[in-house]
Parts: sequence; structure tokens; C-alpha cells
Amino acid sequence: MVAVRLRLRVAYDGTGFSGWAVQPERRTVAGELAAALDRLFDPATGLTVAGRTDAGVHATGQVCHVDVPDEQWQRVATARGAGEPDPVVLVRRLAGVLPPDVRVPSVEVVDDRFDARFSAFRRHYRYRITDDPAGPPPLRRFDTLGWPRPLSADAMAAAAPGLLGEHDFAAYCRRKPDATTIRELQRLDVRRDGDVVTVAVSADAFCQAMVRSLVGALLAVGEGRRPVDWPAGLLTRTERSSEVTVAPAHGLTLVGVDYPTDPAAWASRDAATRRRRDT
Amino acid sequence: MVAVRLRLRVAYDGTGFSGWAVQPERRTVAGELAAALDRLFDPATGLTVAGRTDAGVHATGQVCHVDVPDEQWQRVATARGAGEPDPVVLVRRLAGVLPPDVRVPSVEVVDDRFDARFSAFRRHYRYRITDDPAGPPPLRRFDTLGWPRPLSADAMAAAAPGLLGEHDFAAYCRRKPDATTIRELQRLDVRRDGDVVTVAVSADAFCQAMVRSLVGALLAVGEGRRPVDWPAGLLTRTERSSEVTVAPAHGLTLVGVDYPTDPAAWASRDAATRRRRDT
Repeated sequence: MVAVRLRLRVAYDGTGFSGWAVQPERRTVAGELAAALDRLFDPATGLTVAGRTDAGVHATGQVCHVDVPDEQWQRVATARGAGEPDPVVLVRRLAGVLPPDVRVPSVEVVDDRFDARFSAFRRHYRYRITDDPAGPPPLRRFDTLGWPRPLSADAMAAAAPGLLGEHDFAAYCRRKPDATTIRELQRLDVRRDGDVVTVAVSADAFCQAMVRSLVGALLAVGEGRRPVDWPAGLLTRTERSSEVTVAPAHGLTLVGVDYPTDPAAWASRDAATRRRRDT
Repeated sequence: MVAVRLRLRVAYDGTGFSGWAVQPERRTVAGELAAALDRLFDPATGLTVAGRTDAGVHATGQVCHVDVPDEQWQRVATARGAGEPDPVVLVRRLAGVLPPDVRVPSVEVVDDRFDARFSAFRRHYRYRITDDPAGPPPLRRFDTLGWPRPLSADAMAAAAPGLLGEHDFAAYCRRKPDATTIRELQRLDVRRDGDVVTVAVSADAFCQAMVRSLVGALLAVGEGRRPVDWPAGLLTRTERSSEVTVAPAHGLTLVGVDYPTDPAAWASRDAATRRRRDT
């Protein structure tokens, strides 16, 4: 069969999911997406994601790829009366078969060197916290952590620069045997807008629970329990630090994944870099 | 008993409620709020709201008032070790007894001329729609209407000015016997931000289903089914128009209520104006 590779942008409300990856007896994002694709294609194969998010984590800009038979793509994505396939036709059809907590905002045909996981060179996350004494606003309670004490966003922002750059983030990683914990943190911005503090985090890749651990360390600084230089000081550790609290999953959203614009670069990531790209 | 009148700002996710007003066997916002107040005060009396929202409608800036015994206010709102009551202490205590889909972001002691319903002179609503072919973004699906066809926000905006001012909005009102349907529409702005079209509506008061009927008429214009001058043309009608579709409740949010800053004006609304202030 001649296959077409599709790159999908995926958005989801993680509240009702046991994370991305398919697990028996659990409702997962990959499970729902695969089921929707299977209603339109036979077969849709090799569903691969940029980063497997943990249970309860949301996405507005997750990316995955999947292969479908070319003949079926032509048929499924061509509107009645139209001469050729249009990705937005597939977007509409997927909207009709997906549950409301998963959406595919865009579809693109890519050449088969594109790999949602291995071609990615940067991931962007956002974490939302409110220290409003009233608690999270009802309509945003599913993606906003309520914090019971006042936070100094200025102190949190002051702690951020010391963490930027390439470091061994062992203190901030759930340890996996034989996996490196060296990452390059490229952005760590803290911004207050009214009662909401938003932490924007970007890196080449993240080890497991790394964003939530960084946020947990910043929260300790923000409420004055730790000094501003404490989070960067943990970078000397070679093991996970039990002093770092992992912030709850529901404040976290994967907002985007970056890929080279040149398709020739999609397949050229070197093996050392690949080993890091596990989340 | 010496009573203290409290003005409460109230926010809620209307998804899980049969509207504001207490009804037997139904979960309502007033029911939950009264239950929370009853856990802190004995008695909390005369809970009165600026506008009773319909089932499924949300609020970020609803306003209500309630009377509580002064001695209890002093006790409940005074932090341990503090000399006098602080409204934020009550905000925190209410956060501890309210369900997560209802919040009280602020509390203020007001003099007893303040009446959340009769002192109000303006209500502000917002309606969110997306014409993204993928459907509403998962994390905002509870307060965003998905529209299956492309909308021209420009055409909707062009239809708005003809509706502004004092008119008989009979075509846009669910009829109540002997109630006037004359209202002063003070703002009707349509703005597109990416795939989301937001309609901002303000008036001295609204009759039942008026905002959702106005939005329904604008949607007909936005998708090109009706000409730009059609919504204003309906103002000549003296009865509800069956041609106007009432937009679904879940796109609608009450965002604010305006009151005179001078307490002397709180009790001085004339009777003719009062009769209008039913929603």
C-alpha cells in the first residue's frame, strides 16, 4: 500500500484521561485518538507523539504523526464535489468522531522523514497557578492550581535565570535507569496577571515530571519558604531531590512542539540527542 | 438582632446547575451559596441576586447581597489574633465550604440601602463562539459555543449599531404577562480573536433570553443567512419573533453588574426603572 504520513496537532483536557499512552482498561488520549482514526481509516498505523503527557496534564499544541493509506486519504479528505483532498475536511470529520475533550485543530501531509517524537527539537509548557484566596476561577479550575498562600511572582522570576542552560536536572527528574538527565532549559518565565501566575517553560526535551518539579521548586521560593538561589543550587545534585515537591498535574499544559522547517533536518537528529527525547 | 449587609461577588461554572434560583430537587447556584452561608452564619437571610441566570449560563461577576448577624460577622471574619473583621477572611472561609464550581471572589460590607437587584443600573454579558472546524478548544468547551459554519465577525459587528439605544425588544424577549420589554442596549461589540468570536453586551437590564436571542440573530447574519439590517428591523415587532433562534446557554457568561458609587443613589431607583430590572 502507498501510505501518506499525517502530522496532527492535538488539544485535550487531561482531566478525564489517564495520560497519553494507551493502557489496558484506562481512558487515554492516544486510545481515543486511535479509535477516532480507526473509524475513518483502515488501517491508521504508527501513531507516534512528541511527548507522552502524564495523567491529568492538558495540551493545546501536542503533535503526533500517523500513516494512512493514500487512497483512503484521498477519499476521506476530499469534500463532495471537490477535486482534491483538503486537510480541513479531515479536521471536520475527526471533530465528528472525537469526544469533546480531544480535538485535532490541524492536519498536514508531511513527507515520511517527519517523526513527531524524534524530529522535535523543543517543547513548550505552561503552568497556571492562582493565589486568589477565593480559589481557582470556576471556568478555569481544571487547568489552574489553587495555592493557599500569597506568592511572590517576582521572587519566582528571580530564581529562574539560574536554571537556564544545559544542566544535569537529576534533582528534578524521576529517575529512569540508564537515561541521561541532562537537558537544555531554554526558557523559564514567570508572569503575574491579576491573581494568576503563569510559568512558561521551554527545553529541548524534558525528563519525567521535570516541569512540575521546576514549578514545585519555584512555588517554594514564591511563598518564601526557600531562598531565591535554592532551585539553581539543586543542579549540583546527581539524584532526585526529595525536597522538591512535584506540582499537581492539572496546572500543566503542553502548548507547543518545535520542528525544523527543513524536512531534510527531520531525520538527521543524532543519536545522543535522540536518547534525551523521551518526553 | 443587629444585622450587617454583605455584598458578594459570585463566579460560577453554570454547567452543573439548573440556573441561579432555588428549585426543589435541583442543584442551583443560590442553593449551594445559601448552604455555604448557612454553615458559617445562623441565620444568613435575604439572599438577593442582581440577575437570575438561566440553566447553563456562567458568571464571573454576578453580585448578590445577604444579611448576617453583626456579632457573627465579627467572629467569622476576624482572623485568629486580629482585632477586627477582614472581608478576605470570609472569602477564604467560603472557599472552604463552597463546591469548586462556585466561588466568592470578594465580600464587602455595605449599608442596608444596597440592594443587589434594585440598585443595579447596568449588566454586562459576554458570549463566546468558535467557528474553528475542529470545534471548541477542550479546556474552554464549557463556555464556548461551537459553530459549524464560518462566521463573518465583520457582518455581525455591522449589524450591532442598529440595535443600540432604548427600544422595545419584544422580538428578543420571552414574553412575561404585564412586563415591559423596553430596554436600553448600551453596548453590543463583536470581536474576533483567532477562531473565537466574542460578543460583549451591556444594557440597563435584560428580559429573559434577550442576550441569547440577540446573539442568535447576529449568528444568522454572521453566517450570511440574514442581511446585516435584519436584527434591527425586528425592533418594530411587538411580539417575540419565532425567526430568532435563542443561542445555547453555555456560551453565555454574566461578567459584571454596575451600581452607583454613591450609597444615596442605591435606594432611589424610580419604580418604572425597577419594573425592568427583572434579569
